[in-house]
Amino acid sequence: MHPSPAELRKLASLSELACLVADGSAPRRGALAQATGLSRAAVAQRVDLLIARGLLVETEPEPAGRGRPPASLRLAPEAALVAAVDLGATHCRIAVTTLDGRPLAEEARDLDINDGPARVLGAVHELIGELLGKAGRPARDVRAISIGVPGPVEASTGTVIRPPIMHGWDGYRVPGFFADREGERKHGHANGPELHRAHVLVDNDVNIMAFGEYSRRRDGEHLLYVKVGTGIGCGIVSGGVLHRGASGAAGDIGHIRLPGHDDVLCHCGNSGCVEAVAGGRALANALKAAGLEAEGVRDVVRLVEQGDPVALRRVREAGRQIGEVLASLVSFHNPDAIVLGGRLAQLQEELLADIRAVIYRRALPLATRSLRIETSTLGERAGVEGAARLAARHLLSPQGIGRLLTRPE
Amino acid sequence: MHPSPAELRKLASLSELACLVADGSAPRRGALAQATGLSRAAVAQRVDLLIARGLLVETEPEPAGRGRPPASLRLAPEAALVAAVDLGATHCRIAVTTLDGRPLAEEARDLDINDGPARVLGAVHELIGELLGKAGRPARDVRAISIGVPGPVEASTGTVIRPPIMHGWDGYRVPGFFADREGERKHGHANGPELHRAHVLVDNDVNIMAFGEYSRRRDGEHLLYVKVGTGIGCGIVSGGVLHRGASGAAGDIGHIRLPGHDDVLCHCGNSGCVEAVAGGRALANALKAAGLEAEGVRDVVRLVEQGDPVALRRVREAGRQIGEVLASLVSFHNPDAIVLGGRLAQLQEELLADIRAVIYRRALPLATRSLRIETSTLGERAGVEGAARLAARHLLSPQGIGRLLTRPE
Repeated sequence: MHPSPAELRKLASLSELACLVADGSAPRRGALAQATGLSRAAVAQRVDLLIARGLLVETEPEPAGRGRPPASLRLAPEAALVAAVDLGATHCRIAVTTLDGRPLAEEARDLDINDGPARVLGAVHELIGELLGKAGRPARDVRAISIGVPGPVEASTGTVIRPPIMHGWDGYRVPGFFADREGERKHGHANGPELHRAHVLVDNDVNIMAFGEYSRRRDGEHLLYVKVGTGIGCGIVSGGVLHRGASGAAGDIGHIRLPGHDDVLCHCGNSGCVEAVAGGRALANALKAAGLEAEGVRDVVRLVEQGDPVALRRVREAGRQIGEVLASLVSFHNPDAIVLGGRLAQLQEELLADIRAVIYRRALPLATRSLRIETSTLGERAGVEGAARLAARHLLSPQGIGRLLTRPE
Repeated sequence: MHPSPAELRKLASLSELACLVADGSAPRRGALAQATGLSRAAVAQRVDLLIARGLLVETEPEPAGRGRPPASLRLAPEAALVAAVDLGATHCRIAVTTLDGRPLAEEARDLDINDGPARVLGAVHELIGELLGKAGRPARDVRAISIGVPGPVEASTGTVIRPPIMHGWDGYRVPGFFADREGERKHGHANGPELHRAHVLVDNDVNIMAFGEYSRRRDGEHLLYVKVGTGIGCGIVSGGVLHRGASGAAGDIGHIRLPGHDDVLCHCGNSGCVEAVAGGRALANALKAAGLEAEGVRDVVRLVEQGDPVALRRVREAGRQIGEVLASLVSFHNPDAIVLGGRLAQLQEELLADIRAVIYRRALPLATRSLRIETSTLGERAGVEGAARLAARHLLSPQGIGRLLTRPE
């Protein structure tokens, strides 16, 4: 089953060529030979294979003046599909996309992550089938299922580890669910789409959002995506790759201690955590205690948008408190950009201005001189965008490209 | 001057083989063919070249039993030398090492970094010459000069950027000094060793220390090296590579705000910075104000070692304060290990115990469950060790190996 070293080397070479074409850095045979050092004959042999398997497309340009300009190559984004899944605590968004992240069908639904993996993933599996139906594409075209979940993940195995929410998921190996489904199918016991050709990738939801924002930007290798919703979390891109940390816990900034709030108890058992002071749930609770109608983050946003002065003051205070924590992280990580997402990030004027002010005042000038602090342009789509991009990166890698090159059945 | 794509490809292949042998993962021709997918003939051709240029050594083992066991390969660490330079504010340490980091000669000297680049680098240049003399090796054997400086550096160009100390160095491009020296030599105007075959690498001093500690350990890809001396700084290894940040400022944690100390003014212009509260200079000042004899960090260490209760209380307090900042960084970065260095780190019992206690109490359990927090085993040698290892990694890389393979003059 395992490829030989020579096969691995060939896959690495095919991956290199496909990536050079996909990112536009070498869109012709001659340029590929230049970039890789391969002979023209070797490039031709490999490019012909990639074209035969439908992964690349070659276009003859119109003759212009004398001679014929060289044919140009591009990735065929339809060559394979990705099921991109963003699971939140109370909702999910799923898209079926092409290799360049374009959604063919997409839908958001309510769900309760605490229903546990069997029910939640069962619903995901079914919804992927519905989306494939809408897109008019067969399940065998799906070569990767890329899933973000609201908790820490050991990405190498797709195992959920000690999630603070996600009842029933601790230690659950997500790819196993899909393997079991395909096993059951062989014995005639399963419904839903037949996804046995798909590789399953699992990551933390804020990580995939960070990767989504990173993929859409072209302004540096180091990015922090900070999600301010019910809680507060962060996804880290360092040197163009997701930084997950030693145990998949990197970016868990909601429990960083905020000075002077030791009287505020957090659900983690500590006190003074920034999430317990300035997160969406904390704000809603504070506003409710002040006699306002505020059950959750949505109400906080509504009250601020209605111009309620108490809500406005509380949100601006939260901006300064979050800014304080982020200023420390800017001094430490020195990112090119901070992108703010999550429901509270909608409050650009009110929240962002104060976060910015504190970061620029507190972090070192060298670390902020070219730092951009912006709100997400992808909004609620950041998760599926990142999931799709991570999957495409995997499928074009030496480890993944074999899956794209297997002949259609 | 620029190598052709085919030459680049060959260098990449030679680099791959040399690295596989150097790190011990493929110490025989057969294993190299397995690991790379190259044919045995191609491996033989390239390995023969590496042996001919003195970079690899092949040893025929004693015949044991029937048949002859295959010959084993190893790196010839003497094939090239590195000048590893650790520049501090008031001292420097320089070593001439082999490719595996072994020092052939090493010396520490006092210097004042504020004398500016011409005088300081002039002294460095001269000392490298002296060390080569002691080691009995000619200057042409030196293929890399690897320098750490006490300030932010744009590593790609070796330029010092806006250093808070280092008077006269702002914007100075360190490799230019050595290029100029060799230019002057051609016109007969320069002394010191002839180092024109050496590539010059420049980095922040705490970064090279972090890389030194990382190179000596084998327990994970993510490491923070925290230097607690006169000031407080941090070097970051993420995924096995130095994380320098968008503008070379990553790890500058000394100016993270410590809660509740807004009355303490820092030299950076802000107030409440952890360095201004818990750094070595701050401790010495506090002890002096309490009537003790304390001019600098050395005195703080001495007083604690003598059992002075005021000094002891102050250092333990500093441990808790530094621990508070590090707990936030552990939640964010989720490292495998934190290594403490710098003069104050000598106070293991007094400082480390409190730092540890705060981190384990404050950071998330998932981020600390396999976290190791230890003092440096390399001590004052961490800088030259890291500088030597970074240089060796560069010289064995596709970009650097050409320099090792040029024929001796």
